[in-house]
Amino acid sequence: MADGTKDQASSNQMWGGRFASGPDAIMEEINASIGFDKKLYAQDIRGSIAHATMLAKQGIISVEDKDKIVEGLNTILSEIRDGRFEFSRKLEDIHMNIEARLAALIGPAAGRLHTARSRNDQVALDFRLWVKEELAKTEAMLTDLIAALLDKAEQHADSVMPGFTHLQTAQPVTFGHHCMAYVEMFGRDRARVRHAIDHLDESPIGAAALAGTGFGIDRHMTATALGFREPTRNSIDTVSDRDFALEFLSVAAICAVHLSRFAEEIVIWSTPQFGFIRLSDAFSTGSSIMPQKKNPDAAELVRAKTGRINGSLVALLTVMKGLPLAYSKDMQEDKEQVFDAAENLELALAAMAGMVRDMTVRTDRMRAAAGSGYSTATDLADWLVREAGLPFRDAHHVTGRAVAMAEGKGCELADLSLADLQSIHAAITDKVFDVLSVDASVASRVSFGGTAPSEVRKQIAWWRGRN
Amino acid sequence: MADGTKDQASSNQMWGGRFASGPDAIMEEINASIGFDKKLYAQDIRGSIAHATMLAKQGIISVEDKDKIVEGLNTILSEIRDGRFEFSRKLEDIHMNIEARLAALIGPAAGRLHTARSRNDQVALDFRLWVKEELAKTEAMLTDLIAALLDKAEQHADSVMPGFTHLQTAQPVTFGHHCMAYVEMFGRDRARVRHAIDHLDESPIGAAALAGTGFGIDRHMTATALGFREPTRNSIDTVSDRDFALEFLSVAAICAVHLSRFAEEIVIWSTPQFGFIRLSDAFSTGSSIMPQKKNPDAAELVRAKTGRINGSLVALLTVMKGLPLAYSKDMQEDKEQVFDAAENLELALAAMAGMVRDMTVRTDRMRAAAGSGYSTATDLADWLVREAGLPFRDAHHVTGRAVAMAEGKGCELADLSLADLQSIHAAITDKVFDVLSVDASVASRVSFGGTAPSEVRKQIAWWRGRN
Amino acid sequence: MADGTKDQASSNQMWGGRFASGPDAIMEEINASIGFDKKLYAQDIRGSIAHATMLAKQGIISVEDKDKIVEGLNTILSEIRDGRFEFSRKLEDIHMNIEARLAALIGPAAGRLHTARSRNDQVALDFRLWVKEELAKTEAMLTDLIAALLDKAEQHADSVMPGFTHLQTAQPVTFGHHCMAYVEMFGRDRARVRHAIDHLDESPIGAAALAGTGFGIDRHMTATALGFREPTRNSIDTVSDRDFALEFLSVAAICAVHLSRFAEEIVIWSTPQFGFIRLSDAFSTGSSIMPQKKNPDAAELVRAKTGRINGSLVALLTVMKGLPLAYSKDMQEDKEQVFDAAENLELALAAMAGMVRDMTVRTDRMRAAAGSGYSTATDLADWLVREAGLPFRDAHHVTGRAVAMAEGKGCELADLSLADLQSIHAAITDKVFDVLSVDASVASRVSFGGTAPSEVRKQIAWWRGRN
Amino acid sequence: MADGTKDQASSNQMWGGRFASGPDAIMEEINASIGFDKKLYAQDIRGSIAHATMLAKQGIISVEDKDKIVEGLNTILSEIRDGRFEFSRKLEDIHMNIEARLAALIGPAAGRLHTARSRNDQVALDFRLWVKEELAKTEAMLTDLIAALLDKAEQHADSVMPGFTHLQTAQPVTFGHHCMAYVEMFGRDRARVRHAIDHLDESPIGAAALAGTGFGIDRHMTATALGFREPTRNSIDTVSDRDFALEFLSVAAICAVHLSRFAEEIVIWSTPQFGFIRLSDAFSTGSSIMPQKKNPDAAELVRAKTGRINGSLVALLTVMKGLPLAYSKDMQEDKEQVFDAAENLELALAAMAGMVRDMTVRTDRMRAAAGSGYSTATDLADWLVREAGLPFRDAHHVTGRAVAMAEGKGCELADLSLADLQSIHAAITDKVFDVLSVDASVASRVSFGGTAPSEVRKQIAWWRGRN
Repeated sequence: MADGTKDQASSNQMWGGRFASGPDAIMEEINASIGFDKKLYAQDIRGSIAHATMLAKQGIISVEDKDKIVEGLNTILSEIRDGRFEFSRKLEDIHMNIEARLAALIGPAAGRLHTARSRNDQVALDFRLWVKEELAKTEAMLTDLIAALLDKAEQHADSVMPGFTHLQTAQPVTFGHHCMAYVEMFGRDRARVRHAIDHLDESPIGAAALAGTGFGIDRHMTATALGFREPTRNSIDTVSDRDFALEFLSVAAICAVHLSRFAEEIVIWSTPQFGFIRLSDAFSTGSSIMPQKKNPDAAELVRAKTGRINGSLVALLTVMKGLPLAYSKDMQEDKEQVFDAAENLELALAAMAGMVRDMTVRTDRMRAAAGSGYSTATDLADWLVREAGLPFRDAHHVTGRAVAMAEGKGCELADLSLADLQSIHAAITDKVFDVLSVDASVASRVSFGGTAPSEVRKQIAWWRGRN
Repeated sequence: MADGTKDQASSNQMWGGRFASGPDAIMEEINASIGFDKKLYAQDIRGSIAHATMLAKQGIISVEDKDKIVEGLNTILSEIRDGRFEFSRKLEDIHMNIEARLAALIGPAAGRLHTARSRNDQVALDFRLWVKEELAKTEAMLTDLIAALLDKAEQHADSVMPGFTHLQTAQPVTFGHHCMAYVEMFGRDRARVRHAIDHLDESPIGAAALAGTGFGIDRHMTATALGFREPTRNSIDTVSDRDFALEFLSVAAICAVHLSRFAEEIVIWSTPQFGFIRLSDAFSTGSSIMPQKKNPDAAELVRAKTGRINGSLVALLTVMKGLPLAYSKDMQEDKEQVFDAAENLELALAAMAGMVRDMTVRTDRMRAAAGSGYSTATDLADWLVREAGLPFRDAHHVTGRAVAMAEGKGCELADLSLADLQSIHAAITDKVFDVLSVDASVASRVSFGGTAPSEVRKQIAWWRGRN
Repeated sequence: MADGTKDQASSNQMWGGRFASGPDAIMEEINASIGFDKKLYAQDIRGSIAHATMLAKQGIISVEDKDKIVEGLNTILSEIRDGRFEFSRKLEDIHMNIEARLAALIGPAAGRLHTARSRNDQVALDFRLWVKEELAKTEAMLTDLIAALLDKAEQHADSVMPGFTHLQTAQPVTFGHHCMAYVEMFGRDRARVRHAIDHLDESPIGAAALAGTGFGIDRHMTATALGFREPTRNSIDTVSDRDFALEFLSVAAICAVHLSRFAEEIVIWSTPQFGFIRLSDAFSTGSSIMPQKKNPDAAELVRAKTGRINGSLVALLTVMKGLPLAYSKDMQEDKEQVFDAAENLELALAAMAGMVRDMTVRTDRMRAAAGSGYSTATDLADWLVREAGLPFRDAHHVTGRAVAMAEGKGCELADLSLADLQSIHAAITDKVFDVLSVDASVASRVSFGGTAPSEVRKQIAWWRGRN
Repeated sequence: MADGTKDQASSNQMWGGRFASGPDAIMEEINASIGFDKKLYAQDIRGSIAHATMLAKQGIISVEDKDKIVEGLNTILSEIRDGRFEFSRKLEDIHMNIEARLAALIGPAAGRLHTARSRNDQVALDFRLWVKEELAKTEAMLTDLIAALLDKAEQHADSVMPGFTHLQTAQPVTFGHHCMAYVEMFGRDRARVRHAIDHLDESPIGAAALAGTGFGIDRHMTATALGFREPTRNSIDTVSDRDFALEFLSVAAICAVHLSRFAEEIVIWSTPQFGFIRLSDAFSTGSSIMPQKKNPDAAELVRAKTGRINGSLVALLTVMKGLPLAYSKDMQEDKEQVFDAAENLELALAAMAGMVRDMTVRTDRMRAAAGSGYSTATDLADWLVREAGLPFRDAHHVTGRAVAMAEGKGCELADLSLADLQSIHAAITDKVFDVLSVDASVASRVSFGGTAPSEVRKQIAWWRGRN
């Protein structure tokens, strides 16, 4: 026999006001989702209109009822848009809030809307529609950011700067070339976004609670009406699946990594020590008494967003781990993670596009840095191999001696005289100076995808054809 | 020379209304923290009062100014508590919002409050105070949950149930013993919470921007006034440190794992197949047409919270990775993660304490399950080793034969007759029945921490002495 | 002036033997990657052969040198495959190990192989080739797992089982339908795998250190030789990019979530309480004295793998956060995460396919569970709406009364007589029994993707056409 | 009736050699843990000796058997240490490998060792002992790193450098003060390590499979013998608990964040643009042709380790999520995460201590950077408030004008004449120069924990008393 124990939650008081009224207050707070899922109101109404229209077409409900439902839903849409709708936490979620209002507006016909569907496929539809729209928005914002980078790259296709490895000067490159590296990254992000849309492009509505339905519905009709490629093929999976949310988050996380790398560079380049760029006032904050100081706040915040988005990805991966089919309430935790990641990714993309457009590039500082530190030493070694036919090892040895000589004289390689260089190796001719200056070095790297301005311009053109 | 490029953000329009007004709108949205840090208003005001009082005591500001400041701050505190305060996003954060209001209330004296401090140590103080209070709240809620478990354990110190490994019946235990396993877990959580308080118990105020100050402040005085053990010992670390937030999140994450394990058990135990417990209506949802159905929504949501809290931990660990000292704006991303984790941990702890108190334990179902599947086979083997002196291998062999005989007869081990057992091994006496029933098995396990009711009651008493 | 401080690491001894020999031992241990990157030997050699062949074709090295290089590399390939190669940690990584061996085998010509390339593009190539092959392997394993599920689904297209929500019986479905839910999931995983291959299908070689090269190389030729669609378009991005690794890990993480859900079900279904399936001995472990006990070890381990793969994803996302372009040594941490995730995903996929093929489905237990708990109550309500024209609310009310009556009689809905039902509502006819039994309920759900056996078979056929 | 289906795994071949031999090969590979848990051999043997000794003391086994067991185990210990032990994957794990060898060495007495224990409490013991030892090692390494920092801080208590916020120069500090910020961080890590030891300091052995035992064991005796404070208090929790592993990982993750911050600074400071330090050759790699180039490889790898350790933490948190009590096989995934994190944390701590000891501090570059950018502007403003009694707002206004004047003259604030300053505000006296130079500024900040050398030295002394 069961023991029927039920203790008094007398100690609720100790938790303070929040749960003072006991179990019901706790349950309402943990269970209600209206606080965040009201964001889905437009999708919910759109889905309901498509569903009602299909039900009427199939003769499952009358045209009169359908018309009342559609009119009622459009009224509610206006009410919510205009801020005239009163959301109730007692009604738990967006579906119940709208349903209750619809019943108040049109009476019993409202009940017929729920024919051949359940909250399980309804929420799957609403959320999927939302994510699909958000992906489209992300695609547009990536396109805008790429456009900003292409403009900057074109402007600076010839502007030399140090190419870094380990944050040490390695070889000269151009700032245009550097910008185009980010175009590649954001271009890959956009390809992932497009494929993510492709993967989710199936309509959940009609899966009902989990088993499908015996009503004679037409899921292809609702799929088409809602802009999906086709209906989903398994009703159990349909109400259990949150892959579209996980994929959005993982695509966002990789994009956030790219943004964080650029943001880090902006922070470093804005230091007085580097001084490669100057951010606009719009994206930095200053000091009332140190007018030259510009804190790169926006870049730092963009950098930090990668943490937040990683966190959301981890959160949902953990929530979904080991959930038996079909719907479990755990899955209610999906939306806030996606909403937060989406909002912050948008913000970071917008801020980055704005910073790129607004930043002042200090080409003089970049050029000076590119030319120091014997950054063309590998050009000399390559030249010796290529033009003078030296074996690699010898070429490196000669180069090392030339650098040592320049260091001794306190000058750069390009400042050595031909006589100096020939004193190290007789095969050196004055053609060598074609690669020793940073401009010459950069211009020489014409391999596909290389840093030569001619090559950078080709890639800009290629991308302009695709943006 | 710099190139002075500044493109027009003409394409902002494509992002829709959100950033339509250009860079300033983006920057305000990414930069302002008032949307979440207003939660720190009480801490901010408390800190300011302590600081002003110390400044006056040290003769750095006048007593008159101090009095005005304190009065003004108390006014603001009332305004915020009563919902009469207008927060402004233009003023970015809680500190500036309060500062601006104070200036409006008391005039120039307001400016003196900022003597010998900066927003960097101010936010470090506010947030640390908040986390410290939250840890104290968590400690109290853990204590309450432990109390609920102790009551349940006491009530069921004798109620047998299957002890599982791999979710397969292994050996009989008692439900009281099972509850006490969670007491151990939440007890360890509480120990970690207490140590986390210990680790953060140093006052940041007075570190100023990052270097300390030349004003003759008394940091021990403010530390004492604010309830800290002592002031922090390094001003650079003080404004750079968010260990207290990371430690809160990691302690919360481990606690959430414990909650998720219990929640999983509740979900499984609530199935018709197990039927070990019945949740109260308060913590489950039903179906209008299937009255016997009870969905364990609260347990599922508690289980899911572990994802969310893990996510917050990952988020902040990622944000803090590789940040150069001292303050960077990235650190503004710390608060939302902690606030969200704290709110959800509280909710999960309250829901779990509520479910424990309210649940009906179906001791008959547990007992039936405990007695099936030859769960006392190891008791027989142990008895043969202990009482009949058989070597382990032989004892296992004899036990295997006894189980096979019971299986053949379609009964449990305790249902075999002495003659049956002696036909397998002559050394078996009727004393063996002292361990073959589930009650006997359970009663025999009197090792320290074992499942014998006598032992479980000892541990309950021990914990009651510490709760 | 610099202070030239250099303390003695005299306390190294306290760390024990591991770092006793001081800084050099620490650096060798933290820096060397040969312990794991030797896994890339085949890719490294393949890439070098393609590179040498192109260099000779372009006249950058002689055909003789190329022939020596290719022969030497093939020798090394055999040596490694046969376990006759001695890897040296002093030589740090796989590239240097092979390079040093090549020099020993063919002399100075070995040095020419390094013309117009660097370790930066070389490691990018090797790793990308490896990930591409692993993705192809994953695709094949997913196809095999889908095949196993399709067979099982076909066999059990009519086998009824409870459809769960919240792990509570909701509506009857078929086991075939349930299996097909996983076909959808693994099908989506496969789509993601294919797109991941598409996203990475560009050849890095020729990007050199980061800036491209002045040698007249042909990157399209090496791309084609190595099976890539085309060469990468930006040399800085090429050596900085690890998107292909991040995307592999995120695709793997989502797939691991699916595996964990099925694994959880297997664990629950294997309990004596559920008893829906019996695992084969190959995938479970037993007890020497409890012969009926079968621990679902393989399923538990598959479930756990999701943790490990999530961990690898987080690890690499964190490593890449905020890295300035181009190559930084941090990126050396990429390979172990991918190798470990790949190995464990393969293992989990193989174990799951094996478990699916080997499991015994206890259709009698499933059917019994499906029929209890008034699981066809919604069928009755739907029938009342559909066939008797009742409004929703009334249909629910009638259904509730019917369930109450059945509960009172201790029977299921289908066991009530027509008279019983008509006593509740006169509009009920004997047609109602077409939906009240579990078989009838299941057969009636013929909506696209629904659980009706006819519908499940259609989807099986569709998938067979695509597997 | 069950369907008895068992398909042929005929397609195993497609997966290639790895699983060609079918289910058994897959199961062995996924199930066996000897590949990593052999690391626990010393703990396993130590635990078994303590257990056998207690069993004999309690009269549960004979002294002769105990002596044989202990001698056999010591033999095995030597065999493993000397590399003469052959591990077998067929025997799955370290416990079975040692058990089988013991049986071969001493015959039937070996079986008695397993009296009153199970693999569940055995592995809990072994792993807990290992983690406890690792924590002690971590504590020692933190102490060593703190010692290195204290030495460096003492040496540079007066060396001025820029104090950064947002990586922009904010106020002058000293390098000693900066080093002491890390002493605080690693000191907190050490406190957490010590508390983690405290939390795990209970002996699991004697919990047996999960329920305790009926044998008359003495768990306090084994606890004492193994160096634990006391035995665990609940046998179910004992075999289910992995808090000690989670806590190790979370403590390690926070410590790794600290290491990553310092590593990031080292990377930035090593750029030619900053040039604040020079790493020793031991911890950097060079270029054969660019002798001035030093890549901070060790620092980059230390920075990257934070990703790996975060990953391990996430992995185990995910594994443990939602596991029903008591032991589940999922928990076998615990060890590799902890082993990997421990190995890498050790490596990172050793590398960081080495870098700190070996680095050359370029005090001239630091000083030059500290003095530029009007870094003492806040000192001037503070002085005006403090000494000249100006209200804050006026002080800021005057300071802004002084900076503007200095900017106009192309000099720093300290280079302005008294007349210049008095032309801006008459209340300025020559005392102002006491704060305008970087040395004066630094020396003035004598608040507790401030950057004044006198204050830094006090904190060094305080820490020396505790290290």
